[in-house]
Amino acid sequence: MEHSGLPIKRADAVSNRARIIEVALAVFAERGLDMEMGEIASRADLGIGTLYRHFANREDLLRAILTHTLNDTLAQFHAAAAETIDDPRAALLAFVLVGLRVQQQYGPIFAVMRDPRLRKIFDQTQAQTIRDQFLEVVLSILEGGIKAKLFRSDLDQEVVAATIMGSIMGVHDLFETRWSVEELAQKLVLLHLAMLTRNGNG
Amino acid sequence: MEHSGLPIKRADAVSNRARIIEVALAVFAERGLDMEMGEIASRADLGIGTLYRHFANREDLLRAILTHTLNDTLAQFHAAAAETIDDPRAALLAFVLVGLRVQQQYGPIFAVMRDPRLRKIFDQTQAQTIRDQFLEVVLSILEGGIKAKLFRSDLDQEVVAATIMGSIMGVHDLFETRWSVEELAQKLVLLHLAMLTRNGNG
Repeated sequence: MEHSGLPIKRADAVSNRARIIEVALAVFAERGLDMEMGEIASRADLGIGTLYRHFANREDLLRAILTHTLNDTLAQFHAAAAETIDDPRAALLAFVLVGLRVQQQYGPIFAVMRDPRLRKIFDQTQAQTIRDQFLEVVLSILEGGIKAKLFRSDLDQEVVAATIMGSIMGVHDLFETRWSVEELAQKLVLLHLAMLTRNGNG
Repeated sequence: MEHSGLPIKRADAVSNRARIIEVALAVFAERGLDMEMGEIASRADLGIGTLYRHFANREDLLRAILTHTLNDTLAQFHAAAAETIDDPRAALLAFVLVGLRVQQQYGPIFAVMRDPRLRKIFDQTQAQTIRDQFLEVVLSILEGGIKAKLFRSDLDQEVVAATIMGSIMGVHDLFETRWSVEELAQKLVLLHLAMLTRNGNG
């Protein structure tokens, strides 16, 4: 009974929440961890009271956009993995492509993931869990490649996974303006395959 | 003539400046870009006036610790490269070791290098120049390995360099608490050599 009679208001509330997160991401891209509630309310065309009904304070909203970003990123990784489940090489390319795209989409958020101040705002156990879930996606691609006898099995698979994730950040930061995401992904996967296959040709 | 008669004061000034930077790095590790001049003056046992005589404002001091960090990192990379100039494999290991060590030493600074707010404080042309100098160190190690016919030459060398730099960040963030810097460097270089050599054994 709790929901009855309030369908329109509820739908509004949901769309307000989604709009707040969207606007907060845009404000965050400019102000980083200094983003302020007043600017977000104003750019979302909402009263400050409405904003505070959705998010008790600035830290609460920061946590919400971080969680949104990480969950959406993980969903994109899982979707790409599901589409390429039988082809380890394609799965690797799809992973790298998504990795580069989320860097473009959520760059400012990923940029502060290592900020010391974030430790106070964002629960580190949750952060670790999400990192492990990202790692898990790569590890299962690698496992698929080893089972298919395409990838070598004698490397430390977790270090391989961390290298692949780090390489996406590295090439994005250095070359995002020089090559398209698709070109970068192709170049990067060539290196990954050189690392993962014995004859070095993937 | 400008310097005459002020030797003691000058020496004090130099050591004050060095101490301010040291303290500012420690405060930065806790507060990030929110670090405040008052706290730094107090922890350096200096009057706020003395602090402002060295650094006109907070941004000025932030720029100083960023420049200090990047120059010191580059100097450590160059020193390691100079010691291993005739051995590309040893040069790669030395580079990775220094890369992991500076992540430990200056982690909080590197953590904000991608923060959008930094663009307002830190000249982006200078940042690009420093990134290019880092890249140059790796590129010359790779070139040495190709000349010695140890490393393959058919990969995009800049993407290889970005991958090596990114992989250092990736494994540091994921595994810094699990393995020592030396163990991590060994594991990582094995992967790099798998990527760089045709038979995948380095």
